[in-house]
Amino acid sequence: MKTRDKIIQASIELFNEQGERNITTNHIAAHLGISPGNLYYHFRNKEDIILSIYEEYARNLLLDTFPKVNPEMKPLDTILLYMDAVFQALMKFRFLYANLPVLLAKNPLLHEKYVEVQHIISGRLSEMLESLRDADMMDFEDEELADIVSILRLINTFWLSFYQTQTKDTEINDSVFFEGVLKILVLLRPYITESAKAEFLEARTVYQQRHKDSLAAA
Amino acid sequence: MKTRDKIIQASIELFNEQGERNITTNHIAAHLGISPGNLYYHFRNKEDIILSIYEEYARNLLLDTFPKVNPEMKPLDTILLYMDAVFQALMKFRFLYANLPVLLAKNPLLHEKYVEVQHIISGRLSEMLESLRDADMMDFEDEELADIVSILRLINTFWLSFYQTQTKDTEINDSVFFEGVLKILVLLRPYITESAKAEFLEARTVYQQRHKDSLAAA
Repeated sequence: MKTRDKIIQASIELFNEQGERNITTNHIAAHLGISPGNLYYHFRNKEDIILSIYEEYARNLLLDTFPKVNPEMKPLDTILLYMDAVFQALMKFRFLYANLPVLLAKNPLLHEKYVEVQHIISGRLSEMLESLRDADMMDFEDEELADIVSILRLINTFWLSFYQTQTKDTEINDSVFFEGVLKILVLLRPYITESAKAEFLEARTVYQQRHKDSLAAA
Repeated sequence: MKTRDKIIQASIELFNEQGERNITTNHIAAHLGISPGNLYYHFRNKEDIILSIYEEYARNLLLDTFPKVNPEMKPLDTILLYMDAVFQALMKFRFLYANLPVLLAKNPLLHEKYVEVQHIISGRLSEMLESLRDADMMDFEDEELADIVSILRLINTFWLSFYQTQTKDTEINDSVFFEGVLKILVLLRPYITESAKAEFLEARTVYQQRHKDSLAAA
């Protein structure tokens, strides 16, 4: 692995474990046994590292795992797979989401990239919900779509933060994501048509079982 | 105003304006023209100040403004008044909510108090929704109640953070709260009964108008 990649991987690990605000570029260099000068050869400062983490890793993970709406896949599975992937991505870069407003305010270039990606995600989520409506699985008015998408993104983005604030037991395991997916299903449920209700409840049972299993395994 | 109160007020102001992580106890003392020793006579450290802000101000604001469910008030107005008050409280202590998971992780006593208050709020929100169901204005299953309350609290807590991450224009004015209340109404809408739909849409029109007016005034 190249030094640059090593710095990025070590930073993700240290930020997640000890909190981004407690880690300096000196900590990262010491952790890797390299000189601060070597680190500065690759990155100007900590904000620069965070920007690279977002641009080269988090961004792609969020955009690449977005399943294409395709006729061979059940529409409901498309959205569930996506929600699952989003919650896993948030876990991988949890230092970013635990502290998002502050990090974006400090780092205007990161904020710009973030807004760009969110815009793409909104578009794809809208398409996904529209394809569920076309398949007669969901029912909503055109004027409701933007709000539903926005609340979905809010829950995606801050579910982990919310979970961590609600409990003194801060250990994060898989059950937390399955719980997040179940919350998304609560939000979607009122819009599911009568004819799709059975398939919807079946999908919910799958996630309830996964949630139960992961709690038992933890 | 006593020195202790002055320290608290100045801290709220500085934290909100410049971000809590950029402000030290020395900045606060210098801002007030008092010696660091004088500040330390009242508070051991910054965490101690944040804890007092939460316990003496934010906590009470959230709990005291909770309108009691009473027969003289329309049930829908009760919940709207509350949501309005919650969003205003979040604005007043926005440094806390912009950074909640990190601040709670650093401050176990604050985390404990926070979980306690959230527990009380969950109970009151549940009562409120149940009173709307008793008045035949909402319809939901008992098993859905906890999830609806939890999503309401998530939107309350992170609406401001979400808003700030979505736009490069970080100025916060009243329109942001009205937009938050409107999002809460989107979440509640599918549970509103046929007979209450007119009253609900009327309330929504009021908030849509307030949102529009505050945008025009900004």
